[in-house]
Amino acid sequence: MGCVQSFRDLCDRPKNTNVRISLPAVCFVWQIAMIILFGVFIRYDEESDTHWIEHRKAKNISDIENDFYFRYPSFQDVHVMIFVGFGFLMTFLKRYSFGAVGFNFLIAAFGLQWALLMQGWFHSLDYTDGKIKIGVESLINADFCVAGCLIAYGAVLGKVSPVQLMVLTLFGITLFAVEEYIILGLIHARDAGGSMVIHTFGGYYGLSISWMLYRPNLDQSSRLQGSVYHSDVFAMIGTLFLWMFWPSFNSAITDHGDGQHRAAINTYLALASTVLTTVAISSLFQKHGKLDMVHIQNSTLAGGVAVGTAAEFMLMPYGSLIVGFLCGILSTLGYIYLTPFMEKYLKIQDTCGIHNLHAMPGVIGGIVGAITAAAASETVYGKEGLANTFDFEGSFKNMVPTRQGGHQAAGLCVAICFGVGGGIIVGCILRLPIWGDPADDNCFDDEPYWELPEEEECIPPILQYNNHMACKDM
Amino acid sequence: MGCVQSFRDLCDRPKNTNVRISLPAVCFVWQIAMIILFGVFIRYDEESDTHWIEHRKAKNISDIENDFYFRYPSFQDVHVMIFVGFGFLMTFLKRYSFGAVGFNFLIAAFGLQWALLMQGWFHSLDYTDGKIKIGVESLINADFCVAGCLIAYGAVLGKVSPVQLMVLTLFGITLFAVEEYIILGLIHARDAGGSMVIHTFGGYYGLSISWMLYRPNLDQSSRLQGSVYHSDVFAMIGTLFLWMFWPSFNSAITDHGDGQHRAAINTYLALASTVLTTVAISSLFQKHGKLDMVHIQNSTLAGGVAVGTAAEFMLMPYGSLIVGFLCGILSTLGYIYLTPFMEKYLKIQDTCGIHNLHAMPGVIGGIVGAITAAAASETVYGKEGLANTFDFEGSFKNMVPTRQGGHQAAGLCVAICFGVGGGIIVGCILRLPIWGDPADDNCFDDEPYWELPEEEECIPPILQYNNHMACKDM
Amino acid sequence: MGCVQSFRDLCDRPKNTNVRISLPAVCFVWQIAMIILFGVFIRYDEESDTHWIEHRKAKNISDIENDFYFRYPSFQDVHVMIFVGFGFLMTFLKRYSFGAVGFNFLIAAFGLQWALLMQGWFHSLDYTDGKIKIGVESLINADFCVAGCLIAYGAVLGKVSPVQLMVLTLFGITLFAVEEYIILGLIHARDAGGSMVIHTFGGYYGLSISWMLYRPNLDQSSRLQGSVYHSDVFAMIGTLFLWMFWPSFNSAITDHGDGQHRAAINTYLALASTVLTTVAISSLFQKHGKLDMVHIQNSTLAGGVAVGTAAEFMLMPYGSLIVGFLCGILSTLGYIYLTPFMEKYLKIQDTCGIHNLHAMPGVIGGIVGAITAAAASETVYGKEGLANTFDFEGSFKNMVPTRQGGHQAAGLCVAICFGVGGGIIVGCILRLPIWGDPADDNCFDDEPYWELPEEEECIPPILQYNNHMACKDM
Repeated sequence: MGCVQSFRDLCDRPKNTNVRISLPAVCFVWQIAMIILFGVFIRYDEESDTHWIEHRKAKNISDIENDFYFRYPSFQDVHVMIFVGFGFLMTFLKRYSFGAVGFNFLIAAFGLQWALLMQGWFHSLDYTDGKIKIGVESLINADFCVAGCLIAYGAVLGKVSPVQLMVLTLFGITLFAVEEYIILGLIHARDAGGSMVIHTFGGYYGLSISWMLYRPNLDQSSRLQGSVYHSDVFAMIGTLFLWMFWPSFNSAITDHGDGQHRAAINTYLALASTVLTTVAISSLFQKHGKLDMVHIQNSTLAGGVAVGTAAEFMLMPYGSLIVGFLCGILSTLGYIYLTPFMEKYLKIQDTCGIHNLHAMPGVIGGIVGAITAAAASETVYGKEGLANTFDFEGSFKNMVPTRQGGHQAAGLCVAICFGVGGGIIVGCILRLPIWGDPADDNCFDDEPYWELPEEEECIPPILQYNNHMACKDM
Repeated sequence: MGCVQSFRDLCDRPKNTNVRISLPAVCFVWQIAMIILFGVFIRYDEESDTHWIEHRKAKNISDIENDFYFRYPSFQDVHVMIFVGFGFLMTFLKRYSFGAVGFNFLIAAFGLQWALLMQGWFHSLDYTDGKIKIGVESLINADFCVAGCLIAYGAVLGKVSPVQLMVLTLFGITLFAVEEYIILGLIHARDAGGSMVIHTFGGYYGLSISWMLYRPNLDQSSRLQGSVYHSDVFAMIGTLFLWMFWPSFNSAITDHGDGQHRAAINTYLALASTVLTTVAISSLFQKHGKLDMVHIQNSTLAGGVAVGTAAEFMLMPYGSLIVGFLCGILSTLGYIYLTPFMEKYLKIQDTCGIHNLHAMPGVIGGIVGAITAAAASETVYGKEGLANTFDFEGSFKNMVPTRQGGHQAAGLCVAICFGVGGGIIVGCILRLPIWGDPADDNCFDDEPYWELPEEEECIPPILQYNNHMACKDM
Repeated sequence: MGCVQSFRDLCDRPKNTNVRISLPAVCFVWQIAMIILFGVFIRYDEESDTHWIEHRKAKNISDIENDFYFRYPSFQDVHVMIFVGFGFLMTFLKRYSFGAVGFNFLIAAFGLQWALLMQGWFHSLDYTDGKIKIGVESLINADFCVAGCLIAYGAVLGKVSPVQLMVLTLFGITLFAVEEYIILGLIHARDAGGSMVIHTFGGYYGLSISWMLYRPNLDQSSRLQGSVYHSDVFAMIGTLFLWMFWPSFNSAITDHGDGQHRAAINTYLALASTVLTTVAISSLFQKHGKLDMVHIQNSTLAGGVAVGTAAEFMLMPYGSLIVGFLCGILSTLGYIYLTPFMEKYLKIQDTCGIHNLHAMPGVIGGIVGAITAAAASETVYGKEGLANTFDFEGSFKNMVPTRQGGHQAAGLCVAICFGVGGGIIVGCILRLPIWGDPADDNCFDDEPYWELPEEEECIPPILQYNNHMACKDM
């Protein structure tokens, strides 16, 4: 008890947002570590090495059958989602756009390097020479891995320092790689678009951290916790790039051929359906039927999350529409009822509402995936198609769809456990008063961490001659 | 006469913008209808079905020859044009950015589902099992179909309710699918980039609706019908994404190989040429040679519209430049002379100037297509190339280029008739006073349909201590 | 001496920014010249011509092996970098966003046409019929060529007229094509991502022009030479699209297969590393460790520039990280120390800091390329891979890596000489008082060249009743 008390005392010391030593130190140390580890472990894979020409001739295939041409367009779309999509989605706060876009940029750039290593050790270590061989699929997986941490950032947006974010990312990537290995490798669940692996994990990870970092007096100083007209338009850039490129996200690492094709179609349809039910619920629950930008910016994306696991299955076009339909409703209701409830009673302050956009739809996606897998049959998939889609080969040669459904459900549980458990531990670490996080009064404000351009004040013309200029310059 | 009068009286009742019942009702009813119809009719096509692996082996082809890899990058570019391009292009109004981006999002998401069904029934119904088989080309066509309605939205931007927009879209997609079937299927005209099918139809459809919805007293309350500095920069995001990805638009559904390659080159060149003549005319017709953002945002795109039909033909690089050259001039002159003329004398209020950007360049595109087709010869195209480019096979095996030119011209006429005729009918329907459209005073304002963030007022420092903060927050 | 004096007198006449005659005249004359030259010289290449079907059958290859499918996705990414990336990166000035995006659009659209001709004459003239044959690779090269001039625009941003920019572009493209021919064709240096050919040349070209156009009294009137909050967010759109798509830039014209694959991986890694060191240095050199948006917007990109030449070599993943690591540090230090030094002592006013983002990293890239080439060996590359990567064939069949390193260094020198020499000459031409450039007081202001929307003034509520509206409209 005394121990907990002294930990609390330690954590409640006055805040100092000066990160002039800690931030550069962390960046340099980690980047140098990355260079050394990359030097020891990481090499080009067969398809990106200059020896490709020999392999190509030996296999008698064309250059176009290099995996690069199967996946690079999807990779670039995913890349846009990570940096512009997530970055701009969080610019909605009136005075935290630099932090939203800039810190998103920082932690994504750091995270993807660490992800290449962690995922490499677990998934693509070449035991003949002890090296990790990377290619375009590794880059996509690294971006996916980073997505989990960016989701978590959404829950603590505006309340943490960049140093805390880097710690959050370092642990987040590590947990992600382990969890992913368990779910995909050991349990042999399928999760093309990462409903479980990325969204469920990332969502609960962020929410648990936010719970540990609860700020009881934040309400009273939240004059900056809202949007202005232009910041909402900036946020729509993020929303739309996420929405448009989500079919690429869910299809980026699925099987060549029909796998990528089907995943893109299912995601496209689920997202379209979500938009309509989001608008419907948003309008229904507001005075005069006015739409709320928070819902349009976020809930319209829930269908893409929820269709992630099942996107490569024979979910059928109408199945995708149904998933999107439900998620639009649930996600929007989550913003209306659940977010205030969580803040008031569960002490979870969720700045971007990631519970409604990622955690809950992620769980739905896991369940939809389990059901769809369990219901799979040779009649629908064809004999080869079934084995191909669910990867029933090697030690899983005798797997059957119903059992696969159980494995899918087990995977979902692992994702939730890692998210909640990891979040609580990392949250405790982040409560230490050494990370330079802002005081309640400085939350949701770029001022502590960014040199802001001088704003010319708006002074009435009777007091100053160049009033017109002053206002124009804004 | 009495009937017309009573219709007018009915339409001129006081406006009520409350859409709390109608908007959710329409969204839910239509989305549920979509789910049922998709369940009955829509299935994956051969290339996105798990049976692909069998077909692939039977045909002895590689995964990379799945149509997905031919068209998916272009599809994503088109998708960006539909949602970011059209959406942000319309954000130029100082106080209608939410409506521009948000309603564009809503009707596009709805429209593409209905388009998959309508186009499916006409084009890709599998008579063996009565199902529509969809693949990536269907998604592109659905996006194209939606584009026609988004063009029409440009004419009525800021003057209609979201419910009206959904009605406009429902009828627009339906008319589009019929018109497209007549032009491409029955008349056998070629229209790769949709100069006729998309732009001419969409343009005249929107203009006719705007004509039916004429608001005589709009001028007097148009304080919001202009841009501000930042809204013009937002609009440039839309312009540039449309401009950059137009080569993908015009080449998305052309023939594999040289067809897509040539369409992209022609469009790239036509657009480059348009930019220069747009700047020239804009500068020439303003005091001191200053450029007008309206022209730069819109007329620079006219070349892409006008080269749509002929993009896949042997238009030749210089031919593309000439088309772009003329369209830049005509479109900019349209903004300077024609739009005010149309508003004053023809009672057509065209908010975005779609006549100059879509309708007129679309007609030019149809004419250019007819001439280029009529002038085609085996000398230039090669024997196989000619048959291949113009699809002279099956029942059109004995078609000759000159006759194809006539068919192209006939297709253009059909597009105009469907646009004008359909627009007048739908415009009448939209005049009914049940759709929640805004009063003249509320036009071009997001306030009636959106929860707006509170703007902190700008109060002089002598009156309030936190003036600096107030202004900063803007 | 008297001659120089009279040239100076001529150049110092009062400024007149009216471009109503000159701008349209230049646009029309050049566009018509382009049409004529395209008519005489430019045709489709084998892969975009309707005869492709015959070639395809003769070669027994599939449609997917058309170069279009290897390069089109990269082309579109490069296209986005040119128009949105460069355009929005320069919107950071508080009152020059129209000029940044709009003039960037104008000169890029003009430049790419001229580049197709110039590069065609030097690289792809078909001597059998005297025609230039263009395909998707030509379009990419044209965009690359334009990039050189857009880099130069960064140095003179806000201080020149659109007519001057078009002259800068016309000469810039011409110099570029010659320089490129010497470096790649005669010297046989490799430069996939254009560190030397594009960035070093473009950077020094712009800096030399800026030196010739030195404005001694600019400081005193530079109230507009800064950013505001929203303009910095707009600029981040440019930064991110450049950053994300740089792997496509560096891999767009490398060899099919492993060449493109490896170039993308190297660039991805170098850029990630740069972000971390940029943040570290930016924080370390500011009071309280605050980050400076100028660094985040620009220096984060330096790694992509510096890895350009070596991107297709076996630079190894850790090598890419090291390059990015160093460039982030040097580029950020450049902004902190070098830019003010250059302005004060060298009389080079570099608005966007292109020396730190392009010129210096470009030189580093050239050196890295020379070292990597000289260190290449058959052990690492494989026999075929070495010949393939460095193009050791034809008259360069007996080339060895060490000698290739020397050729790379020679190429770098040529790029610097062309940049500096060309810039000085073109700068002299641009000093003539006939181009309509702005007076010092009008620099960094859109007002001289653009019709600006009326801004409603911010007048205190005691003076005017509709104050709330006035502020809201901003």
